[in-house]
Amino acid sequence: MTIAIIGGTGPQGQGLALRFARAGVPVALGSRDATRAAEIGVALRAQLDAAAAPITGVANEEAVMMADELVILAVPFAGHNATLAALKPHLEGKILVDIVVPLKEGDPKKVEMPPEGSATEAAQALLGPDIPVVGALHNVSATTLKTLEWDINCDILVCGNSLPARKKVMALVETLGVVAYNAGDAEAARCIEAITPILIRINISKQVPFTHAGVKIQAPAH
Amino acid sequence: MTIAIIGGTGPQGQGLALRFARAGVPVALGSRDATRAAEIGVALRAQLDAAAAPITGVANEEAVMMADELVILAVPFAGHNATLAALKPHLEGKILVDIVVPLKEGDPKKVEMPPEGSATEAAQALLGPDIPVVGALHNVSATTLKTLEWDINCDILVCGNSLPARKKVMALVETLGVVAYNAGDAEAARCIEAITPILIRINISKQVPFTHAGVKIQAPAH
Repeated sequence: MTIAIIGGTGPQGQGLALRFARAGVPVALGSRDATRAAEIGVALRAQLDAAAAPITGVANEEAVMMADELVILAVPFAGHNATLAALKPHLEGKILVDIVVPLKEGDPKKVEMPPEGSATEAAQALLGPDIPVVGALHNVSATTLKTLEWDINCDILVCGNSLPARKKVMALVETLGVVAYNAGDAEAARCIEAITPILIRINISKQVPFTHAGVKIQAPAH
Repeated sequence: MTIAIIGGTGPQGQGLALRFARAGVPVALGSRDATRAAEIGVALRAQLDAAAAPITGVANEEAVMMADELVILAVPFAGHNATLAALKPHLEGKILVDIVVPLKEGDPKKVEMPPEGSATEAAQALLGPDIPVVGALHNVSATTLKTLEWDINCDILVCGNSLPARKKVMALVETLGVVAYNAGDAEAARCIEAITPILIRINISKQVPFTHAGVKIQAPAH
């Protein structure tokens, strides 16, 4: 089952491509620049051993067409709506996995939500009710994803208005060896997307002796 | 340094009173019903040993007046604005610590934010700029707080427009043996308050073999 990663040549896209290919999931790595996508696809795949799945770098539209069902959107928020509008005709019958965080221009310690409430809700409004949008993978650091010898220090909160679509995305995410939680409908993205700038603030501050913080759900300690 | 807990006879208020008194912080436990507050204060204090600080149950107004600086608001969201409006004259020179989560009527797996964006922002708008409001302690379960033999399985995300006020609340919270993080200005409460219904959803679901989930910031695993 091939997945697409739109904006796959950015740091988050590259990290996800590496992790999914290593887990055996073939990746169509999309970019506006197909040549750059092809080059980066080859370079990423070279980091993995023979048992890993392929990473095929292509233009964004072609990546969507190669995806069996799941299309991950990993562009900066500035390109979120325009990218979706361009890809909408190709997204019919697929599920869009929106990982975009609307960080505030000039201050990544804050979020600046679109009028719809969150990027996930903006995507759902733009694509219409027939293309399910699922928000996921917002809080995991690109550096963590790209550093393959690190375990992923972050649970994945998954939201969206379609429960079957959420469940498919949770199953995909769990191939990475992380825990995915059903966080409810798309409105929950107002919270989940906004966790990222709080983590960025903690990373930037001197509050902790580390960067690339994640969040995890904790059982009671007893 | 005595703190006040308004709505202190509710489950969250009782749990916080126990934990703070055990940590040596005297608590003025407020309720609309002073008699009930006094009775519950005595019953809570009886659970602690002689080294703990006192828990004094009084009317809400009196609790505010007894507080040296920090006043925790722990009422249900339905009473949030009316309680603050009534207490406003007594809050001058104090810091309001708002722990209220605007859970949706009839569905605690969702949040229904006030027009200001969050309870913390609504409190700040209502009290005006001279009384700092700090959001904190939204995500920790009342059962966890009340079960004194459990460690608290939750970090505390602290937000508000006054950095000095945030720091004072972080120092208070850390007396409970938890980690407090500076999460930025009051707008961050839109995220932090909304984490609670996601935890409630996880608790209610069969996703995990436990209830009373918390959240923790995680360092990279390497």
